[in-house]
Amino acid sequence: MSSLAEVAPGAQPDAKAVNKFDPHRNGGVDLQPGIAAPSHAEYARTLVEQSGRATLSTIARDPSGYPFGSLVTYAPDDTGAPWMLISSMAEHTQNALVDMRASIMIAEQAVGDVDPLSLGRVSLIGVLVCDDPTTAMCDSFVERHPGAKVYLDFSDFSWWRLEVVVVRYVGGFGRMSWVDLGDYSNARPDPIAPSAVDICAHMNADHAEAQLALLKHFNARPDLIRAVMTSVDRFGCEFTSETPNGSLALRLAFPKPVNSSGEVRQTLISMLREAQL
Amino acid sequence: MSSLAEVAPGAQPDAKAVNKFDPHRNGGVDLQPGIAAPSHAEYARTLVEQSGRATLSTIARDPSGYPFGSLVTYAPDDTGAPWMLISSMAEHTQNALVDMRASIMIAEQAVGDVDPLSLGRVSLIGVLVCDDPTTAMCDSFVERHPGAKVYLDFSDFSWWRLEVVVVRYVGGFGRMSWVDLGDYSNARPDPIAPSAVDICAHMNADHAEAQLALLKHFNARPDLIRAVMTSVDRFGCEFTSETPNGSLALRLAFPKPVNSSGEVRQTLISMLREAQL
Repeated sequence: MSSLAEVAPGAQPDAKAVNKFDPHRNGGVDLQPGIAAPSHAEYARTLVEQSGRATLSTIARDPSGYPFGSLVTYAPDDTGAPWMLISSMAEHTQNALVDMRASIMIAEQAVGDVDPLSLGRVSLIGVLVCDDPTTAMCDSFVERHPGAKVYLDFSDFSWWRLEVVVVRYVGGFGRMSWVDLGDYSNARPDPIAPSAVDICAHMNADHAEAQLALLKHFNARPDLIRAVMTSVDRFGCEFTSETPNGSLALRLAFPKPVNSSGEVRQTLISMLREAQL
Repeated sequence: MSSLAEVAPGAQPDAKAVNKFDPHRNGGVDLQPGIAAPSHAEYARTLVEQSGRATLSTIARDPSGYPFGSLVTYAPDDTGAPWMLISSMAEHTQNALVDMRASIMIAEQAVGDVDPLSLGRVSLIGVLVCDDPTTAMCDSFVERHPGAKVYLDFSDFSWWRLEVVVVRYVGGFGRMSWVDLGDYSNARPDPIAPSAVDICAHMNADHAEAQLALLKHFNARPDLIRAVMTSVDRFGCEFTSETPNGSLALRLAFPKPVNSSGEVRQTLISMLREAQL
C-alpha cells in the first residue's frame, strides 16, 4: 500500500500509511499532518501564477475611507508580487494615488458546479507602488493579457506593483493560514498546475473505473461507489467520492513527487498495476 | 431595416436607424445614446442577480487599516442588497465587527477565452449589518448555495447584509458610471439573463450563418466575415465580429423588447425572414 489521505473534515490519516518522503513543506498551517501535499505558501504561489485576474481592494476617496473592490488583470514577478497595467482614469488608480494600501484577492476558477467556498483563494495585502517593469516582466504581462497590447503605450496607463506585506491563504473549508512572506516569495508554483484541469477532465471522462480502483486499493476504501478527480499537484490527486454513507473528500498520494503531466500519467499507470496485482 | 448599433469605441449609431421604442432606461450614463440597451442600473442588478459569488472588501484589523479582499457567497434581496451567511471565525467577519464599512465586487463570469476587462462588473459599497433574514430570503440563499445547508444552524455562522450606499458599474472598456441607488434598487434583472449563455452557445454552434446574415442586413455591414454572439438581453444581442479591417463589436437591436428565451427565438426567426426578403 502506498499512502492514505482522507481530507474529509475530522478524518485522520491512517498512521501506518502516511507518506514517508519529505514533502518539502515550507510554511503554513498543515491541517493534514503527515500527508504529502503542497504547503500553503506553494498553493498560494501556484494560484497567483495560474490566474491573471483578481479583485483589487483599495481605500475609496469617495465615499471616503470605504474599501473599494474592482476588477484587475495582473502578472506576477519572480517573487510572486502582482504587476498591473492600469489607467489613471480608473477609480482604483485614483484611490491608490491618495492611499497606497491595497490588497489583491485571487480565487481558483470553478470548473463545473462546485461550491466556490470549497476552492482555494489567496489575499495579498500590501502597498501599491507605481514602478517600471523589466522588459521580461512587461513581456510576461502581455503574453498573459494579449489585449493589453492595445493600451500598452497609452499615456494614461501606468505600471503598478503590489509590494506584498502579508499573505492570507484559504484552501477551502477549514484549511487556512497566514503564510510567511519569505516562504511565499521563495515558493515555486506547482509544475502540474498548468495541466491539472486537463488531467482531471481526462481522468474523469476516460478513466473513472481506474481511479476508483486506485482509491479502493491505496486509500483502503473498498466501499467507494464513485470518485471524481477535483485536483492534482506534484504530490498527488484529490477526489470527491461517494460512499454508501455520503460523500467524502479523498487525497491519493503519489509514491514520490512528479514534475510533469507525463510523470503523473506514468505514476498513475504504475500505481494501477500495483493495485491490480 | 430595424436598427443599427455599433458599440465599437468611438462608433456612432446611424441616426436614421436608431430604435424608436422606449428602452425604459432608468439611470446610469449611456455611452451609446439612442441605442436600445439595458441601463447601467439594470445591468448591475442583473449581474448581482445572476452571480452568487463575490469579493468582499473589508478594513483589516491586522495589518490595521489595509483593505482586505476575501471570497464570499451571497444572495440578493428584493432591493438588490446582498446577504451573506458567514462564520464569526472568518477574517472578514472579525473585520466587520470593528469597522462595518465594506464593498462587494461581482464580476461577470467569462465563457471561454475572453479578456475579463471586456466583461461587466459591479461594486456595491456600503456597510455590513448583522441582521435576521426573512424566511424567503433564507430559502433563496439556500437554493443558490445548497452547501450552506450544512452550516445554516452552526452557532458561529450569522447573517450579514450589505446596506448599499453607492453603486459603481463597469460594463467593459469605456462603459462605466456611478449608478443612482434608487435606480439600482428599483431595477429588475433582465429576464433573458438566465438563458443568455445557452442562447449564445446555441446560436454560435448552430446558427452562425443566420446571425451573420442578420448583422449584414440590419446593421448594414455586408463586409462582415464572421460574428460570434457574446451576450443577449431583452433589447437585443451583442457580437464580436470580423471585418476585412479588423474586429468590431456590434449590437443587433430587437424591434421590440422580449421577455423570454422563446421570444428571443421568435424575434430572431422573424428578423431573419425580413432580412432574407
